[in-house]
Amino acid sequence: TEENTSQSAPHRRFNPLKNEWVLVSPHRGRRPWQGGQEEATVTEKPSHDPDCYLCAGNKRNSGAVNPDYKGVYVFDNDFPALLEDTPTGKMSGDRLFRAENVHGTARVICFSERHDLTLPELPVAAIKGVVDAWAGQIEELGACYDWVAVFENKGAAMGCSQPHPHGQIWASDFLPNEVVREDRNQADYFAETGNVLLLDYAKSETEKRERIVVENDDWLAVVPWWAVWPFETLVLPKRHVLRLPDLDARERVALADILKRLCTRYDNLFETEFPYTMGWHGAPLRAGNHEHWQLHCHFYPPLLRSATVRKFMVGYEMLAEAQRDLTAETAAERLRSLSDIHYKDRLL
Amino acid sequence: TEENTSQSAPHRRFNPLKNEWVLVSPHRGRRPWQGGQEEATVTEKPSHDPDCYLCAGNKRNSGAVNPDYKGVYVFDNDFPALLEDTPTGKMSGDRLFRAENVHGTARVICFSERHDLTLPELPVAAIKGVVDAWAGQIEELGACYDWVAVFENKGAAMGCSQPHPHGQIWASDFLPNEVVREDRNQADYFAETGNVLLLDYAKSETEKRERIVVENDDWLAVVPWWAVWPFETLVLPKRHVLRLPDLDARERVALADILKRLCTRYDNLFETEFPYTMGWHGAPLRAGNHEHWQLHCHFYPPLLRSATVRKFMVGYEMLAEAQRDLTAETAAERLRSLSDIHYKDRLL
Ligand SMILES: O=P(O)(O)O[C@H]1O[C@H](CO)[C@@H](O)[C@H](O)[C@H]1O
Ligand SMILES: O=P(O)(O)O[C@H]1O[C@H](CO)[C@@H](O)[C@H](O)[C@H]1O
Repeated sequence: TEENTSQSAPHRRFNPLKNEWVLVSPHRGRRPWQGGQEEATVTEKPSHDPDCYLCAGNKRNSGAVNPDYKGVYVFDNDFPALLEDTPTGKMSGDRLFRAENVHGTARVICFSERHDLTLPELPVAAIKGVVDAWAGQIEELGACYDWVAVFENKGAAMGCSQPHPHGQIWASDFLPNEVVREDRNQADYFAETGNVLLLDYAKSETEKRERIVVENDDWLAVVPWWAVWPFETLVLPKRHVLRLPDLDARERVALADILKRLCTRYDNLFETEFPYTMGWHGAPLRAGNHEHWQLHCHFYPPLLRSATVRKFMVGYEMLAEAQRDLTAETAAERLRSLSDIHYKDRLL
Repeated sequence: TEENTSQSAPHRRFNPLKNEWVLVSPHRGRRPWQGGQEEATVTEKPSHDPDCYLCAGNKRNSGAVNPDYKGVYVFDNDFPALLEDTPTGKMSGDRLFRAENVHGTARVICFSERHDLTLPELPVAAIKGVVDAWAGQIEELGACYDWVAVFENKGAAMGCSQPHPHGQIWASDFLPNEVVREDRNQADYFAETGNVLLLDYAKSETEKRERIVVENDDWLAVVPWWAVWPFETLVLPKRHVLRLPDLDARERVALADILKRLCTRYDNLFETEFPYTMGWHGAPLRAGNHEHWQLHCHFYPPLLRSATVRKFMVGYEMLAEAQRDLTAETAAERLRSLSDIHYKDRLL
């Protein structure tokens, strides 16, 4: 097949969501690595850590004390990048020195009172609680803001400064760059074809079955054709859904199931707490026609060869174009072949 | 002034070269850091390392033996991401599964036979030798390829797998994403104003004098108004220059002087071998009118607070928009106030 030919030689693939290319160099996985390594994650963690400022009942840097929470706990970020009360009025400026004021807010979402359990180690019902909280935050903050970024940075390799499993929520009165790009590209596709880009894409992937990692009745997780990070995945609903709050109860349970199975495979790949940035993209919250949008979740994990050797997106990647060292099909195949049982449970 | 108002509260600034925004949160520098740290660079290195595959006279992984070189030494990358002899003919494909074949080549450029001296530690004459080699490579490879990426990844934090001071050259028969973007935005500016974007920009910066780090008769290094990385800089010629090979001998010496002074300040900032990705963008090499282009060099260094605490471009940055924790003006001021004498020389 066409895809098979493309796997042996260097080639570029096109990302229609971002309207850009990725350079694929499958033969490059063979080069020796003498560069920087990540520290391997130490897995011995207490279920409650008295020194953790995210654990229940503990004092935070700000002086605030966390309640004795169970399950999800959301609070205002003590060091938000966005503030509610900045001066209003767009700042004008020379066309080469443009600036504008912004308003927003930032929150932290602890996934569970358990300091030692990351997303895939929680039961499906608890992950469903996280999904509900994400949806609730988008609904609440979406009433005042144009965009609500819901994401998780997991692991020291991804700049996570706190081991207690948690995500972040940043709301803003502007649409960030990446959202504007995805909005434009989905709108163009809709204008040209009358179809929803990611719905067409999900349908093709379910037919081709070359890049699927996990699947259930409502959801699909694939290594996208245009993946940039070695084990990048895209989580897609099978029906047309604009935003997280639009999911019904059954779809939320099904999503929790997919997230648990996907992240379990991630952890099993190198038998480590697999680091990543993950986050949700759904239709913007300002009024307007958003029918071209399809809800989706990106997982961007940095590891390439082992628990300690990552892909560096530097040099050529920063100045020219992202480059990957294995095909999306190989990455999907490796993740697909792993067990649904978490390696920590197998070791018991 | 407008710029001063913008410094206290969160705001966005616009990058006209990339046509995207950056979120600036100057107050955020105060948050505590408990996350991952880089290893501090060990500075004790021999001038020749028998185990280094880039040192003169040593054997490489491929089995090839380096000559007994002095100064710059260029050779073909033993593990190139791009190959010359891939199948020709564009691979077609469904519009959601587009791919194309690519051709190219990759080379390594050792800056000097000295294993222990990074760019700012070399004499100006030796740096001029590096500039000449960059220009020579662009001229040579530009005869067959549309784009010649000339860059350096410095330091383990930037994925550099080899401590011997060296850069890379990747040539391709396509224009990479970032080049296409800069080409389009410079062309649009030229069409609208009749001027060259980065020439107008350099003129404004020389008048404003708020973001200049180092300067001489021919060159300017500024922290750009729209900088994303904490101490990002942009190196610009003062006259209209399309490509590195167009520089005359005097301009090359002046460039070597600017690079030495800029990188010395970088090293002095945290008294470490300051990691970065740096690279050149000049007019594409395929025939056509490229008058809207201005040659420039980007420095993207990751360090934020110290020799071991970097800025992580993750989470919000990957999924929404780049965010920085100090203003460009503050970063420029800090770099500008440092000495032109390298800290290692001061310690003697
Ligand atoms: O070729 P190197 O130095 O081993 O590899 C480094 O630079 C390349 C080009 O910027 C990147 O693609 C790699 O991820 C990085 O580790
Ligand atoms: O807020 P944190 O987790 O301390 O910070 C982390 O996530 C932020 C949002 O993705 C990034 O801007 C920071 O660079 C990163 O270190």
